[in-house]
Amino acid sequence: MKYCFGVDIGGTTVKIGLFEMDGKMIGKWGIPTRTEDNGKNILGDIVQVLNEKMDEYDIVKSEVEGIGMGIPAPVDVNGVVLNTVNLGWGYKAVKREMEDLTGLKVQAANDANVAALGEMWQGAGKGETDVVMITLGTGVGGGIICDGRPIIGTNGAAGEIGHICVSHEETETCNCGKKGCLEQYASATGIVRIANIRLSVDDKPSILRNEEISAKTVFDAVKEGDELAKDIAEEFGYYMGRATSMIAAVVDPAIFVIGGGVSNAGPVLLDYIQKYYQTYAFFANQHAKFALAELGNDAGIIGGAKLMLDNI
Amino acid sequence: MKYCFGVDIGGTTVKIGLFEMDGKMIGKWGIPTRTEDNGKNILGDIVQVLNEKMDEYDIVKSEVEGIGMGIPAPVDVNGVVLNTVNLGWGYKAVKREMEDLTGLKVQAANDANVAALGEMWQGAGKGETDVVMITLGTGVGGGIICDGRPIIGTNGAAGEIGHICVSHEETETCNCGKKGCLEQYASATGIVRIANIRLSVDDKPSILRNEEISAKTVFDAVKEGDELAKDIAEEFGYYMGRATSMIAAVVDPAIFVIGGGVSNAGPVLLDYIQKYYQTYAFFANQHAKFALAELGNDAGIIGGAKLMLDNI
Repeated sequence: MKYCFGVDIGGTTVKIGLFEMDGKMIGKWGIPTRTEDNGKNILGDIVQVLNEKMDEYDIVKSEVEGIGMGIPAPVDVNGVVLNTVNLGWGYKAVKREMEDLTGLKVQAANDANVAALGEMWQGAGKGETDVVMITLGTGVGGGIICDGRPIIGTNGAAGEIGHICVSHEETETCNCGKKGCLEQYASATGIVRIANIRLSVDDKPSILRNEEISAKTVFDAVKEGDELAKDIAEEFGYYMGRATSMIAAVVDPAIFVIGGGVSNAGPVLLDYIQKYYQTYAFFANQHAKFALAELGNDAGIIGGAKLMLDNI
Repeated sequence: MKYCFGVDIGGTTVKIGLFEMDGKMIGKWGIPTRTEDNGKNILGDIVQVLNEKMDEYDIVKSEVEGIGMGIPAPVDVNGVVLNTVNLGWGYKAVKREMEDLTGLKVQAANDANVAALGEMWQGAGKGETDVVMITLGTGVGGGIICDGRPIIGTNGAAGEIGHICVSHEETETCNCGKKGCLEQYASATGIVRIANIRLSVDDKPSILRNEEISAKTVFDAVKEGDELAKDIAEEFGYYMGRATSMIAAVVDPAIFVIGGGVSNAGPVLLDYIQKYYQTYAFFANQHAKFALAELGNDAGIIGGAKLMLDNI
C-alpha cells in the first residue's frame, strides 16, 4: 500500500490530509499557522504532524509517495515562493526545504490552483480536464486547470482574476491600487459594498434595510423575492458574467466552479452569473458549465494530494 | 541525421518546411490550398510534396521524426478539427488521417497556437516559456503558451482573444454577433473602422483625409506627427492595453508577441499598447514584455516543427 499527504497552508490554519493512492482520504487534521517570527515554524510544525501521523497509522516513509502543498502566495514552477502577504515568508524555496526536512518528494503550488485541482479530481469538476475555479471569499481568487495541469504563469500569478478590470467607471480604489477590479463587486466584501451603495441611492423598500448586510443576507433576501436584493444580485451577476466570458475567451474551460464563502448562497448565485455569461460569451464558449464547489475546506488537501500524484 | 516537417495550412496557401532536429530550416515550399470539393485534396496535396521533398533531399521515412501541423480552426487535444470556416472541412480527424496517409507521427493544433510556439522557439519569445502571441490581421487571433505548452481549451477555442469584450458601449456588431469585441478596434479592418469614425466626427486637419485609410497609413501618419492619427492610435492602444491586462491576469505571460499585418507599423504600435497596459495591469503582471513578431510567415512552419518535436 502507498500513501500521500496533501497540505493546505492557510493564514490561520494548516490542514493536512493523508490519502491512499486512489484518492481516498484516511484522515485529516488541522494545526494553527504560526506566522510569528517570519513564519519560521510553519514547515517544522507540519513535519511534526506528518511524523506523528505516520507513526499513528504505522506507515513507513518508503510507503509515502510524497507531499503536495497549497500555499497562499504566488509559487513558481520550481516550488519557490517569492513573497507572502500573510505567512511572514519572503523568498522561500518551499519544495526544496520540505524535501530536505522530510526526505520525501514534495510539490508546491498556489493554493487556488491546488483547490481547483481538488475540485477537478473529486468535486464539481470531476471528469473534466479544463476547469476554472473561482473562490469568492474576502477577495476573489482563481485557479485555472488546462488539460489537467494548473496554469502557473511566469510570476506564479496566473489566475489572479479578482483583478481583471470589469468596470471603466469605478471611482473607488481596490486593495491592489487599481479601480474597477472584479473583487470590488464579487467578493464577500465587494457584495456588501455594492449593496450599501444601492441602499443609499435607491429608496425602494427592502428587508435588507433592517439587517446586517452580508453576501448571505443579500442572497437570502433574493430568495424571498426582495426587489432591491435582486438588483444587487443582477449587478453581481453582470460583473461575474463579464469576467467569466473574458476568461473563457482566453482558456476555454469546460466548467467554472464557484467556491468560497459567498458560494454558500447556493444555486441562485449561478443563475445570475450564467444569465450574463450567456450574453457576453463568444459562441464557442457558450456551453461552459457552472457549478458550486463541492469539497468545501477539503479542496486544498485533496488537490494537494492530486498535485503530488500527477508529478510522481 | 533526423528531420521533421512543419506544415502551416492557410486559407489560400499551404506552407511546408523541412527542419533538422535542432530547428534549422533546410527548405520551405508553398502550394495552393485547394478548398473546393470540401477541401478533400488538401491533405493529399501535402503528402505529395512531403514525398517529393524526401526524394529530392534523399531522406528516407525512418529518418523523419514526424509532421507538425497548424490549422486555421479549433483543433482538440486529439488533433481533430470539428469545423472550419475556410478550408471546406467539417469534422476531420486530421492527425489520424495524416498518420494513415504518411505512416509518420503527426501532431496538429490551431494555427495561432502553432505560430506562438514558433515565435517562442526561434522568434521574439526566444528563451521564454510563457508567451501570448496576438495576431492583428483581418481579424485578431491569439496563441497562448504556458510553461512551454499551447493552451488548447475544451473546444479547441482557447486564445480567441479577438472576442474579448473591451467596450460596453459599442453599437456596431462584430462578425461573431456580439458587440465590443477587441477585433472591432485592433484588427486591420477594426483600425480602419475606428479611423473612419474619428475622421467623420472630428474636423481636425489630417493627412489621412487625402489617403486611403489602412492600418499602415494610420501609423505612418502617427510617425509624421499627425494629431488625428495619434488619436486613433491612442484608441487602438487603449483597447489593446485593456485586453492584454485582462489576459495577463488570467495566464501571467512573460511576453506578448504582436504579429500579423498590422504589426508592420513597427515599434510605435507597442508604445501605444504598453502605455495602457501599464495603466490597467495588476501589479504582479507589470513587467510583462511586449515585442513585435520576428518570424513573419515562417512562424507557422517553425512552430509546426516545434509542436512535433515537443511530442515525440
